[in-house]
Amino acid sequence: MSTAPYVQLEAIFKRYSIAQSVINILHWDAAVVMPKGGGSLRGEQLSLLESLCHQLLTNPQLSDYFENVNVNELDAWQQANVKEMQRHWQRAKAIPALLVEKLTLATTEAELAWRQARQENNFKIFAPHLQEVVSLTQEKAEYLAQALNKSPYDALLAEYDPDRTSAEIDSLFSDLRLRLPTLIDKIIESQQPYKPLHSQPIAVSKQKHLSETVMRALGFSFENGRLDVSAHPFSSGIGTDIRITSRFDENDLVKGLAAVLHETGHAMYDFALPQNWLWQPVGYARSLMVHESQSLFLEFNIGRSRAFCQFLQPLLKDYSVNTLYQSFNHVSRSLIRVDADEATYALHILLRYELEKQIFSNQLSMSDLPLAWNETMKKYLSITPSTDSEGCLQDIHWSMGNFGYFPVYALGAIMAAQLFLNVKPEVMSAMSEGKFELLWNWLHESVHQQGSRYTSNELLVHTTKQPLNSQFYLDYLTKKYLPN
Amino acid sequence: MSTAPYVQLEAIFKRYSIAQSVINILHWDAAVVMPKGGGSLRGEQLSLLESLCHQLLTNPQLSDYFENVNVNELDAWQQANVKEMQRHWQRAKAIPALLVEKLTLATTEAELAWRQARQENNFKIFAPHLQEVVSLTQEKAEYLAQALNKSPYDALLAEYDPDRTSAEIDSLFSDLRLRLPTLIDKIIESQQPYKPLHSQPIAVSKQKHLSETVMRALGFSFENGRLDVSAHPFSSGIGTDIRITSRFDENDLVKGLAAVLHETGHAMYDFALPQNWLWQPVGYARSLMVHESQSLFLEFNIGRSRAFCQFLQPLLKDYSVNTLYQSFNHVSRSLIRVDADEATYALHILLRYELEKQIFSNQLSMSDLPLAWNETMKKYLSITPSTDSEGCLQDIHWSMGNFGYFPVYALGAIMAAQLFLNVKPEVMSAMSEGKFELLWNWLHESVHQQGSRYTSNELLVHTTKQPLNSQFYLDYLTKKYLPN
Repeated sequence: MSTAPYVQLEAIFKRYSIAQSVINILHWDAAVVMPKGGGSLRGEQLSLLESLCHQLLTNPQLSDYFENVNVNELDAWQQANVKEMQRHWQRAKAIPALLVEKLTLATTEAELAWRQARQENNFKIFAPHLQEVVSLTQEKAEYLAQALNKSPYDALLAEYDPDRTSAEIDSLFSDLRLRLPTLIDKIIESQQPYKPLHSQPIAVSKQKHLSETVMRALGFSFENGRLDVSAHPFSSGIGTDIRITSRFDENDLVKGLAAVLHETGHAMYDFALPQNWLWQPVGYARSLMVHESQSLFLEFNIGRSRAFCQFLQPLLKDYSVNTLYQSFNHVSRSLIRVDADEATYALHILLRYELEKQIFSNQLSMSDLPLAWNETMKKYLSITPSTDSEGCLQDIHWSMGNFGYFPVYALGAIMAAQLFLNVKPEVMSAMSEGKFELLWNWLHESVHQQGSRYTSNELLVHTTKQPLNSQFYLDYLTKKYLPN
Repeated sequence: MSTAPYVQLEAIFKRYSIAQSVINILHWDAAVVMPKGGGSLRGEQLSLLESLCHQLLTNPQLSDYFENVNVNELDAWQQANVKEMQRHWQRAKAIPALLVEKLTLATTEAELAWRQARQENNFKIFAPHLQEVVSLTQEKAEYLAQALNKSPYDALLAEYDPDRTSAEIDSLFSDLRLRLPTLIDKIIESQQPYKPLHSQPIAVSKQKHLSETVMRALGFSFENGRLDVSAHPFSSGIGTDIRITSRFDENDLVKGLAAVLHETGHAMYDFALPQNWLWQPVGYARSLMVHESQSLFLEFNIGRSRAFCQFLQPLLKDYSVNTLYQSFNHVSRSLIRVDADEATYALHILLRYELEKQIFSNQLSMSDLPLAWNETMKKYLSITPSTDSEGCLQDIHWSMGNFGYFPVYALGAIMAAQLFLNVKPEVMSAMSEGKFELLWNWLHESVHQQGSRYTSNELLVHTTKQPLNSQFYLDYLTKKYLPN
């Protein structure tokens, strides 16, 4: 009977995971097919399921089960599962239900205000809502900090990757702050002038068809997934039902395809998670940081490699491999993060990290944010937005209370580069012929099939011999863009 | 504090209704967009939500609340709400959770077996599964019979309309059995020979576009709803998110359009249910019988009227009003219920009612079902299926354990005719000009906006001065098809 508490824990976390998967379907539906009028019904449905999830994880019996579970009788996966269960449980029970509700309400309103503010280019509409979200998130972070024995900001960071601390991120990012701007100068000096890939519009239906062909070649299973169109690309789902979305621009083939590759990177990770642990925390993706490493890996490191252009060229007969490669890899300082190239991308994140730490520690007031954004933009990228919509209003994340989330994008890019430098030459040459099995076999074994059994640093040390190190990102860029 | 129990009841039934609405979204998703591989995940998700619904309605506190609710302090809507809550509660608590689970499992397997049996035209594959479903449904009916003080079959019937008993249905159907075959003989003798509406295929995309135009003219709000394609047409959703589906046949415009009208009839009922009672039992549609009356009313009585053909003709310029009218109203004895015309339709139901009562009372064994089907078909419609796929394997309902459900279709057709004979001439003439407001105002007031406040007979007596009466169905057919 000594494993009984473990069996009980599995049963509760299975219900929790299934409820989460329903929440994902409801979000996908809202973004892709829901009629406009369905919004308030959807709010009620999501709130019912979120309260069910909260109830499951704050069930007073969990404490007994954790106390009485005999880990010595469990195998390694089960032990790792208990550890992950405890992590989710500690976070959930740390935050009072009332605060969760207040945050849900405040972020729902802040997101609406953000949409309006961005559309009307009027930061003042957004400022008071953002202030409210910041205050509540600070409160949440205090609760988490006490429960996890971390600083409040680090307690938020741990949600997106349990290994990370702000001290480590400060150190990783200071390397980039020091060396990336000079590297970008050199890349821009040495490259050919920009030429758009096509001057005639390419129909959306044609682009979607091309995307599906590419996804199929990559190994995305349409028996177990879909591609749809939505305002903002995303990937969602588990196991045998994983759905990605993209948006397509008739005048820019690269934009839609890049988003498809990014989301396919997420999807391939989710497809390959350990199916035996489908409904258990140890079977979840390791963290959002690792997830982002997989999407950026496919979008940038793989998707903009010469080998990938060689694979792609027969599908895009109008362009030579060289034309594709140059068009995919043009580096330029630009205002919008989601359209940035792989070299300048990290600087967009450094800016956000610097500002959100100031906001979070009350060193930067809301009214000063637009100016601070523009000055930091100038400092890192030598350009200044002409409107706040192209500046501090461009991202949705802060309206959703996602402080501590932005660093994940740069950390994911570093992890992706670190992995990429360990890809064997024969994997790349198979890829140029449209054979991706070697690549996936390696990533499945190194990352995907491990679920949450190991920490992200353990995964990295196992595969690349080192923990996360920004030197690899700089090395990767140097090797690719300044080979001589 | 005396209304406190009522407030508690509303809170529980709100959670129940929201969970049901999520179940509906999951079913819609499975039928319209879900990748094939998602089936087993969907099973887990549905089972979680169904067990949540069952928990909510078998919560031991409900009994206290019902005992302590002071109905004298409630208004008429609230009183009707308590009555409906009790009805749902009594049914839910009558059936043991284990039996619910067994039935879910058995019907899931029976449905799969039915699909295979129909495809392979092999009744033997289906027979043992159907036997298992029948046994479990008999067991369920025994529990319900005890709780509701009805006969087992009547206890099943009450799920689909609380007013109905088998004694009443026997009497309504015996009128039809006696007089409908002769009436159909006369109609067939007097009508023009059948001419298909079109000999050239009409593209599905064109038919879908026409359907959307017709739906919009009828008043279906695409801000609050959708039309999609699925294997079997259905309508689903509540309030401001109601979705219908149809299937289209390039060689038969009438088939797809008929299904669209049928499902739009369901949708217009659901759109107009009392929004103040959205998440409460009194705000639900009265019953599946009344729902079917609304769909058949729009499909048959309205959709095949001369006034509707006049409205439709400008959208289908290739055909005259007369051609449309004749093509929509050709009567013939055919094998498949879902393709039947409005005159022969009821006979298809009489056959099923007769057989399912015999099956349910163990007077007809599974192995004798195919022969009994063919003989009864011969008796009612003078034709014999050449295969079981066109005979006793054509409907999904029995595999799902829906005994007591088939009568609803004929009762709905009777109710639709009874309502239609009370439509004022000015409503029809407005309709011929594409103005449907008068029709909807009348139906909203007579049926839709009453939710479940009144019984179906109360609704009928209020609007037509009489309870359900099959004479009206016969009168309607006679007046329409044999005017001289």
